[in-house]
Amino acid sequence: MNFKFQSIIPELKKQIAKIVGEENVAQSQSQLLSYARDLWPKLTIELQAGKLPVFPHFIVWPKQTEEVQELVKLAHRNLIPIIPLGAGSGVCGGTVAISGGMTIDLKKMDRIREIDRKSLLLSAEAGVLGEVLERKLNQEGWTLGHFPSSIYCSTLGGWLATRSAGQASSKYGKIEDMVVSLEVVLPNGELLKTRTVPRSSTGPSLNHIFLGSEGTLGIITSATLRLWEYPKKRAFQGFMFPTLGQGLNAIRLMMQAELKPSVLRLYDPVDTFFSSQGTLEEKPKPKKPGLSSKRGVVKNIRKYLPYLYHPSLFNRAIQGFARHSKLILIFEGEPEIVELEQKQAKEICLKSGGLDLGEWPAKNWFKHRYRVSYTMSNAFDLGFFVDTIEVATLWDNLENLYYAMQSAISKQALVMAHFSHAYLQGCSIYFSIAGTGKTLEEKLLCYDKVWKSALDACIKEGGALSHHHGIGLLKAKWLELEQGGASPLLKALKSALDPNQIMNPGKLGI
Amino acid sequence: MNFKFQSIIPELKKQIAKIVGEENVAQSQSQLLSYARDLWPKLTIELQAGKLPVFPHFIVWPKQTEEVQELVKLAHRNLIPIIPLGAGSGVCGGTVAISGGMTIDLKKMDRIREIDRKSLLLSAEAGVLGEVLERKLNQEGWTLGHFPSSIYCSTLGGWLATRSAGQASSKYGKIEDMVVSLEVVLPNGELLKTRTVPRSSTGPSLNHIFLGSEGTLGIITSATLRLWEYPKKRAFQGFMFPTLGQGLNAIRLMMQAELKPSVLRLYDPVDTFFSSQGTLEEKPKPKKPGLSSKRGVVKNIRKYLPYLYHPSLFNRAIQGFARHSKLILIFEGEPEIVELEQKQAKEICLKSGGLDLGEWPAKNWFKHRYRVSYTMSNAFDLGFFVDTIEVATLWDNLENLYYAMQSAISKQALVMAHFSHAYLQGCSIYFSIAGTGKTLEEKLLCYDKVWKSALDACIKEGGALSHHHGIGLLKAKWLELEQGGASPLLKALKSALDPNQIMNPGKLGI
Repeated sequence: MNFKFQSIIPELKKQIAKIVGEENVAQSQSQLLSYARDLWPKLTIELQAGKLPVFPHFIVWPKQTEEVQELVKLAHRNLIPIIPLGAGSGVCGGTVAISGGMTIDLKKMDRIREIDRKSLLLSAEAGVLGEVLERKLNQEGWTLGHFPSSIYCSTLGGWLATRSAGQASSKYGKIEDMVVSLEVVLPNGELLKTRTVPRSSTGPSLNHIFLGSEGTLGIITSATLRLWEYPKKRAFQGFMFPTLGQGLNAIRLMMQAELKPSVLRLYDPVDTFFSSQGTLEEKPKPKKPGLSSKRGVVKNIRKYLPYLYHPSLFNRAIQGFARHSKLILIFEGEPEIVELEQKQAKEICLKSGGLDLGEWPAKNWFKHRYRVSYTMSNAFDLGFFVDTIEVATLWDNLENLYYAMQSAISKQALVMAHFSHAYLQGCSIYFSIAGTGKTLEEKLLCYDKVWKSALDACIKEGGALSHHHGIGLLKAKWLELEQGGASPLLKALKSALDPNQIMNPGKLGI
Repeated sequence: MNFKFQSIIPELKKQIAKIVGEENVAQSQSQLLSYARDLWPKLTIELQAGKLPVFPHFIVWPKQTEEVQELVKLAHRNLIPIIPLGAGSGVCGGTVAISGGMTIDLKKMDRIREIDRKSLLLSAEAGVLGEVLERKLNQEGWTLGHFPSSIYCSTLGGWLATRSAGQASSKYGKIEDMVVSLEVVLPNGELLKTRTVPRSSTGPSLNHIFLGSEGTLGIITSATLRLWEYPKKRAFQGFMFPTLGQGLNAIRLMMQAELKPSVLRLYDPVDTFFSSQGTLEEKPKPKKPGLSSKRGVVKNIRKYLPYLYHPSLFNRAIQGFARHSKLILIFEGEPEIVELEQKQAKEICLKSGGLDLGEWPAKNWFKHRYRVSYTMSNAFDLGFFVDTIEVATLWDNLENLYYAMQSAISKQALVMAHFSHAYLQGCSIYFSIAGTGKTLEEKLLCYDKVWKSALDACIKEGGALSHHHGIGLLKAKWLELEQGGASPLLKALKSALDPNQIMNPGKLGI
């Protein structure tokens, strides 16, 4: 769709300022630039190459739902694209203003509206930062149980709009399991409030239309979510398996025995090697405290930088000698249940060939669990790029999908993976990749090839294109392939709700 | 919408027969009559009064998805209403052909397509009867974990289309928690297959658009669902609480302590009285084996039949002396976890003032757990009517909603309730009512008054209109009130998917 509002920009500015106040609308080039991209690595490589992203025309900071409604009505009348934005830490280009327009930053809508201690509910505005929200809840003895590694740089609204899943999702559920009701400004400016009831049989679930809609169907302005009592006990375990297959078998058996680890992360041999140098160490070495964190991985990769120009050989070499798979487990909650779960988990791991590593690997991971979101820029400074590709499939198809995607990516970039969101029916695979090129153009080419080979393989082998990062611009063209008969349905939904097609153009391919 | 296809009925018959075969289409008056109503009690009273329901024009039995697609395309081209039907045991008029048309009975599509033992998945066609499916799974050591009391007379497709919840939902989840993927024939005859993946972040969840859609947005033809290992142990407990409030407190504390009883049923004092004569008996009395079942309740009510003409007085009298609330609990699964949960549940119940009744009340309930669906006709034979009204709300609002609805219904009919689907955030209330009138017209008037007073009170006090029976025709006019801003959205969804408005007209008010 072509938007033609350039001629009325000064008039629009006045009307926006009337709604939110002069101080809450920005148009300077530096501000527009800083809002023009999210953490999609491709945009960083392009910026390094001097290619600027498309800018939005306005950044607007509403302070309450009514202002969001007025802004959307203004945009609806004048056919202005709207890009809802939380903290901008998405990695798929989901907040890029490809047709310009108005970026609505929700961070000034960050109030906790209510904590219901009897029904264990939290009602909060969409713009609240994850870590701020969790810290406030912790102070009163609660937890939300949602811990994406981006928790310091992502918002409640962003989690909802992208179907986020946190590091402790096996116990507390993914964001869709936590939501009880939503407040959404629809593309015509009307307000939708779904009902705050524990469960109902009153037609389709409207929450599920907006969860994962990535701003294309409306703006989520607040939500009511489940609260949990802050866990009384947290217990750590670690195991090393001789092979990845044995580790996968162990985590499947644990999930199907209905254990609920808050954290369960199995590293493939290459990831095990880079995060712990392939040893079975149980204690940190004094001089390398960050060894097992992602910062450590980036540091470790640095040593091998020249090899990134020969990814096939490099992968084959490492895959040749890296054999073991490390598992870390955390159980938390009621002490008696935690102890029982730990006992059963240990039995399953030992029976599956695991070697007990004690508490340290999980404790060390826990200490550095949010660091990964801050390490990407190190890699870019060092001359290579990193990215992550997270997919999911059934247990029956898991090793097949893993090896198919690993093999496809191996030709383009260093590839390692971990398995960190397990279910009764299947598991996610979280590939970390590192690639490079002699010039920025070659880097970009390499980057595009990695994604094409990875997602082509994912589609071919029946995986879900994204487990929890979403689609954005990055994966939009594969979504249509993946969805088959669902694609026209998604488009019909879009046309029904947003006939003017103003909401976050291009995301989800709609 | 007015449908005008009467003139082409003979031609339609030929075309339908071409799709499904002569033997799979019926038009005789007796067959049309038997398909003209479900188990909505109002239709039974009307039939007693000689008022016939609207008949569909055809009953059609497709044997495979492709035939359903062809039938829907035929209806789409010729603007023929379609009423998808499972086993017809709905209680809200959800399968009544209010504009005539084609009732598509899916019971010949009853194949189990696949059991995936590694990923614990079942794929089955929508027309399979619940009990048949569960029995086949049990023979191989599995369970679906879905046990509506209608299990002998309801189908998988019916469960999905109405957002069913079974008696063991606190452990195994409600139907929406069990579904991994759906196959749906859309209103234009196209086939939608959602993906069989454990979880994904790839846009809105399309499953949730069709779950609870009651045939208004498409026909669910098959589904893939989670399987569970048949429980190794099942353990029974019963407690009597001096007051309802203490019982409610106990079940809230149990759910919020993350216990997962497969069955948890707290009876209000009147229901406790009618199901166990108000005594604290722990053993069955030899001559009254069915005492605690619903059949027993109908029998017990029979003794008080004359009092049903004076519901206000009758309710006040019983509420005056019935004080205790009975709770039954069943835990099942891994023996060690079951034992731990039983221990914790007992601690909570005793601390909340409960008296331990031993195993018997829960064991007796378990024995008769599916009987209720077969007792309604007894009541009608005896000259009164019975019905059930199931709503849900947050813990914080539970007693308020209960007393408001009890008081509203009390003026029209005998009312009792149990609380049988509990969550971390709230609970359902399942009112059972019995009313009468001197003439059939008065009975109908009484019936309508019961529902109006009950649902008006539910809306006013913020409950969900239905916990698991759905909306159908019965509750459609309240749905718009309940949904507020959501109603236009539901209508937009309907127009986008079913522009010809042929799918199950009138249900959900769309």
